[in-house]
Amino acid sequence: MGTRDGGSTGGQGCYAADIDSIREAQARIAPYVHRTPVLSSTSIDAIVGKQLFFKCECFQKAGAFKIRGASNSIFALDDEQASKGVVTHSSGNHAAAVALAAKLRGGIPAHIVIPKNAPACKVDNVKRYGGHIIWSDVSIESRESVCERVQKETGAVLIHPFNNKYTISGQGTVSLELLEQVPEIDTIVVPISGGGLISGVALAAKAINPSIRILAAEPKGADDSAQSKAAGRIITLPSTNTIADGLRAFLGDLTWPVVRDLVDDIIVVDDNAIVDAMKMCYEILKVAVEPSGAIGLAAVLSDGFKESSAWHESSKIGIIVSGGNVDLGVLWESLHKR
Amino acid sequence: MGTRDGGSTGGQGCYAADIDSIREAQARIAPYVHRTPVLSSTSIDAIVGKQLFFKCECFQKAGAFKIRGASNSIFALDDEQASKGVVTHSSGNHAAAVALAAKLRGGIPAHIVIPKNAPACKVDNVKRYGGHIIWSDVSIESRESVCERVQKETGAVLIHPFNNKYTISGQGTVSLELLEQVPEIDTIVVPISGGGLISGVALAAKAINPSIRILAAEPKGADDSAQSKAAGRIITLPSTNTIADGLRAFLGDLTWPVVRDLVDDIIVVDDNAIVDAMKMCYEILKVAVEPSGAIGLAAVLSDGFKESSAWHESSKIGIIVSGGNVDLGVLWESLHKR
Repeated sequence: MGTRDGGSTGGQGCYAADIDSIREAQARIAPYVHRTPVLSSTSIDAIVGKQLFFKCECFQKAGAFKIRGASNSIFALDDEQASKGVVTHSSGNHAAAVALAAKLRGGIPAHIVIPKNAPACKVDNVKRYGGHIIWSDVSIESRESVCERVQKETGAVLIHPFNNKYTISGQGTVSLELLEQVPEIDTIVVPISGGGLISGVALAAKAINPSIRILAAEPKGADDSAQSKAAGRIITLPSTNTIADGLRAFLGDLTWPVVRDLVDDIIVVDDNAIVDAMKMCYEILKVAVEPSGAIGLAAVLSDGFKESSAWHESSKIGIIVSGGNVDLGVLWESLHKR
Repeated sequence: MGTRDGGSTGGQGCYAADIDSIREAQARIAPYVHRTPVLSSTSIDAIVGKQLFFKCECFQKAGAFKIRGASNSIFALDDEQASKGVVTHSSGNHAAAVALAAKLRGGIPAHIVIPKNAPACKVDNVKRYGGHIIWSDVSIESRESVCERVQKETGAVLIHPFNNKYTISGQGTVSLELLEQVPEIDTIVVPISGGGLISGVALAAKAINPSIRILAAEPKGADDSAQSKAAGRIITLPSTNTIADGLRAFLGDLTWPVVRDLVDDIIVVDDNAIVDAMKMCYEILKVAVEPSGAIGLAAVLSDGFKESSAWHESSKIGIIVSGGNVDLGVLWESLHKR
């Protein structure tokens, strides 16, 4: 593993976060987040032929792991910074998490820039936690410029959804918990988007157990990470198209080095595979996940994984079920119509 | 509480099960069942204005609490009885539970009489666990006569879905667990159908804490228990009509006395209220429940409950989420079509 895993044996100083900042985050956010349960299913294990451990962040506060990074970022602010409020741009779970963390930090202002195409259920979550919504166009340029304007006007601190030391450190606490709950795990499968979650998870896990395997699961319609990894540099895409609305962001300059060095492989799956994995989560595991939350299981079920050497070397696989915020309107309409 | 709660203070000998048989069941079935988690949601608590504790039996083996009673019944058989196999009639979760428990008891034969209108996903569960399916007509008479024929032909032991000491004792272990996990609960809301679950839950809970309140939740389209309680004798209905396919049975002669004496009230809710509660379970709690599993929350949200004295006297409410086996085909079709 030598150079590639150097980060886990002393070289972590070169990354934005490390095991110490992740342990600090764990202590800082403990009063504000759930220690989420790990679920298993002998029926799913029989289908897959491996032991799977589902780390259910869909049961987390605000329905996703995002509160970990958001609360770590917001509770690390000093009182003067905090008093000016916070701002972020996000179409989904990070937005709600920032609104909730700001509420928990004594109700400081939370300005949330949301693109017009955000899922209604995720916008509702922001409203539920008292976030101040500012609409933007869909493009990342529009989101960022609106966000900058709010920063200038209010002095609010930007809480970046992934490209930030405190965010990455907060997300890494998922991995600390999972390895406390199931220490014998040899592989962790993590959804990848901007890379905040997988960076935190990889930095913590490889510091605890350098031989642990970290695999990313990425949707085919937003596979910038797989392309970046293949090219050896950050690749962004002109557009994305996937049902996994939480996985449409691109790597940042703080997450890319971790993904490059510590993520062992990236498994790309299509939307049909994601829906099939969702079905298995609902119907066998009985957990209501969003598409992004099911992608780890989709990756484990994929031919790509089964044909890899990682498949043969994995026996106890942790899967991060990242969130559960999904609009199921069609289901309720159909049931009410009966 | 005097006479009404006499059963909990020494008079339990008059019922089919008691705290001792329930504790025996807990020891007998421990190797075969999950200790299911209790989930909470501050968002749902804020909506309801009470603290709710969801005992998630949808995460139980075979997706429902039924494996508790089935495994207690089947592991209590001596080897000679067991060798002839078991038989039951059930349209759903009890069928799968008997098939699974028979498989766990060294693969003894499990003959399952299933009415033609059973939900496909529940029939699939029976097949998954290796049950031998025998179809019957929908009427309870047809189910029972086919069941009797199988008993005569094979010598198999009938595992009744509710009207049986071992079944009731097994289901009562839900309540033992819940009160170990959250001792401060003052009220437990339980779905009612044949009465096996609520009898076990009430007998165990009132033995541990005589002042605990036991409320039944029943669908309007199958409200035989509410009618029985009002009339002071078992009432059966000519037909039933509810989305809660697990709650269409009528009380038996062993469950009725417990319901009569130890169940404090029965809250009747309609199918729309059940679907609305399912929505809250999926979208906020992130737990995939079947209609019967959501009825406890529907009862807590109902005007009927809020207008009762029980509402004012309850602050920490346990809700038994009985199962999660539901056909969500319409959802997967819609997501695949995107």
